[in-house]
Amino acid sequence: MNVLTDISTNASRNSEYRAAGVDIDAAARAVDLMKDAVRSTYTPNVLADVGSFGGLFALTDLPPRPVLVASTDGVGTKVELAARLGQYRSLGHDIVNHCANDILVQNATPLFFLDYMASSKLEPENAAEIVSGIAEACRLIGCALLGGELAEMPGVYVEGALDLVGTVVGLVDQERILPRKESMAVGDVVVALPSSGPHTNGYSLTRKLVAGHDLDALITPSGPSWAEALLAPHRAYGPTLAAFSQAGVQLKGMAHITGGGLYDNIPRVLPNHLSAKLLIEHDDIPPLFHHLWQMSKMAQEEAFRVWNMGVGMVLIIAEESVHGVLSKARDSWVLGRLVQNEDAEPSVSIRVGRLMGRGRL
Amino acid sequence: MNVLTDISTNASRNSEYRAAGVDIDAAARAVDLMKDAVRSTYTPNVLADVGSFGGLFALTDLPPRPVLVASTDGVGTKVELAARLGQYRSLGHDIVNHCANDILVQNATPLFFLDYMASSKLEPENAAEIVSGIAEACRLIGCALLGGELAEMPGVYVEGALDLVGTVVGLVDQERILPRKESMAVGDVVVALPSSGPHTNGYSLTRKLVAGHDLDALITPSGPSWAEALLAPHRAYGPTLAAFSQAGVQLKGMAHITGGGLYDNIPRVLPNHLSAKLLIEHDDIPPLFHHLWQMSKMAQEEAFRVWNMGVGMVLIIAEESVHGVLSKARDSWVLGRLVQNEDAEPSVSIRVGRLMGRGRL
Repeated sequence: MNVLTDISTNASRNSEYRAAGVDIDAAARAVDLMKDAVRSTYTPNVLADVGSFGGLFALTDLPPRPVLVASTDGVGTKVELAARLGQYRSLGHDIVNHCANDILVQNATPLFFLDYMASSKLEPENAAEIVSGIAEACRLIGCALLGGELAEMPGVYVEGALDLVGTVVGLVDQERILPRKESMAVGDVVVALPSSGPHTNGYSLTRKLVAGHDLDALITPSGPSWAEALLAPHRAYGPTLAAFSQAGVQLKGMAHITGGGLYDNIPRVLPNHLSAKLLIEHDDIPPLFHHLWQMSKMAQEEAFRVWNMGVGMVLIIAEESVHGVLSKARDSWVLGRLVQNEDAEPSVSIRVGRLMGRGRL
Repeated sequence: MNVLTDISTNASRNSEYRAAGVDIDAAARAVDLMKDAVRSTYTPNVLADVGSFGGLFALTDLPPRPVLVASTDGVGTKVELAARLGQYRSLGHDIVNHCANDILVQNATPLFFLDYMASSKLEPENAAEIVSGIAEACRLIGCALLGGELAEMPGVYVEGALDLVGTVVGLVDQERILPRKESMAVGDVVVALPSSGPHTNGYSLTRKLVAGHDLDALITPSGPSWAEALLAPHRAYGPTLAAFSQAGVQLKGMAHITGGGLYDNIPRVLPNHLSAKLLIEHDDIPPLFHHLWQMSKMAQEEAFRVWNMGVGMVLIIAEESVHGVLSKARDSWVLGRLVQNEDAEPSVSIRVGRLMGRGRL
């Protein structure tokens, strides 16, 4: 169901229906507001006319062994915080980048994205803000916003709350899929790309911790405010990865650091005989995470599972690729090494230190 | 994020986190319960290992001009009714068939499906029931369940309620995309395929109408009960359409009758110079819809926008294809004709009659 025409799916234009909590005029207004934004994402591959039941995307320039890579995800309860603070546009970036990063780590190029947004009552302006954010984020990564659905669901959603779900579909040649677990070896280097904040994880706990706090207060004397830090959009790693690719930098694997943190996400791309040994400089953890960690009173391992603690993406590379990576991504740093694993499954050990400088493990 | 591994995205395994309303053990239990069902849908094209960030689907046997067709949708507030009645499995069929039918009308073959399920509190058994239903429905149409996400979102969902979202991706050759609007002409025949019930539309009003009624009561003396009729799973039209294709029956267009009903969905596949003139036999409208219509006190046009009134899919065919269609789909019937349209946009006129027999317009 195309975003430009999907309104009819859950509503009809009559007063009885509106009395049941579904407002077709609001939906039509929302669609009107977002139409141009959606169209601005269309690449030449998009064939769908307005009114198609499904979005149409022509596959061209296929690699020899084409593989589609797809991922569906939500932004979690960050939506609740954003809705409460009236900041909707960045949620669009959150959902697109969360989904896109999940397929980027497999070396796929995003082709198109579809969104689903639901609430107890459709607020056209807020919905249009979110979809405009989605369209912006899609344009930035060259991905078409091929379809979507706006649903009004009285009785299912808490008043004022909404949920936002995205699906991305990308393409990769089978020979180029990452991780290449068989190429990894003891001594390989683990490099961190910084997160822009908690991204889309840990918000159920985070919201509980900051409940009652003044979110306009600054976290450090030079800012940002709590609200800004908490709602910073999920970072898009596509441009950085494209720079590596253009420079011919070889990656062995990448892990998107989402829920479960460094502990749960790095092992997903490691072979069974290797583990990761990380050392995180105390000062490389952004102040927001130090505060949240302290407020939570959690042990280190717990905190590093709930939050990314400043690391949004991890790269596994050979020693000889370190210079190329650090010079192409100036904000990246060496986080650790792969070591022999003695257990049944790969694991991650993390020491938080104060003595070492960036990149000098 | 693969359904077998996605639990880490919104949760972590500690008591602080659980106190914030997110239960990782429940999530792990749910995944355990649904693992085999998900795997049973895998076709040889599925490459993903457990633990992949995105699901991998190898494209093979591509047509000369491959076009992907994608659609995202929810099941609307039918979820609320199903949850209240404790009937979860059919919801899986609802979401798969709702999405798949949307791309079948463009002549696409579904390749894979991804689901998203969210609630304020994850109930592993209910979630496993739904995903098992999704897997069953996917197997029936030969579509892989490539990924999914289970989210626990306290503060966003009403207690006891859940939302269910699906995305389907299919494939079609560009030459074979439907509708072929340019081939349609005055006198072409509109054929109906029956719905199994309200499918996934009109439930916000329907729930309001039946609130306080005894849903175990029978609708007609020979049944079914209100609950059965209201929760009948959205019909899958793939097998019927496959039978047409095998018999060489040519279709000019198809419309999936979702929200907006016959009035809004048929015009989406018509060229501007044609409209549809339909006559619906009073007795071809199932008793459930007669009751709901009466209870709603709505005018005919309103009712036919909210509900499908017994017609789940509409085919546009040439006169000479009528015999082939009616003989391959024994429950189909002739609903009307295409006529010259004098207005700017195609429209639908519907007369509800008592005199004509099925197939004899």
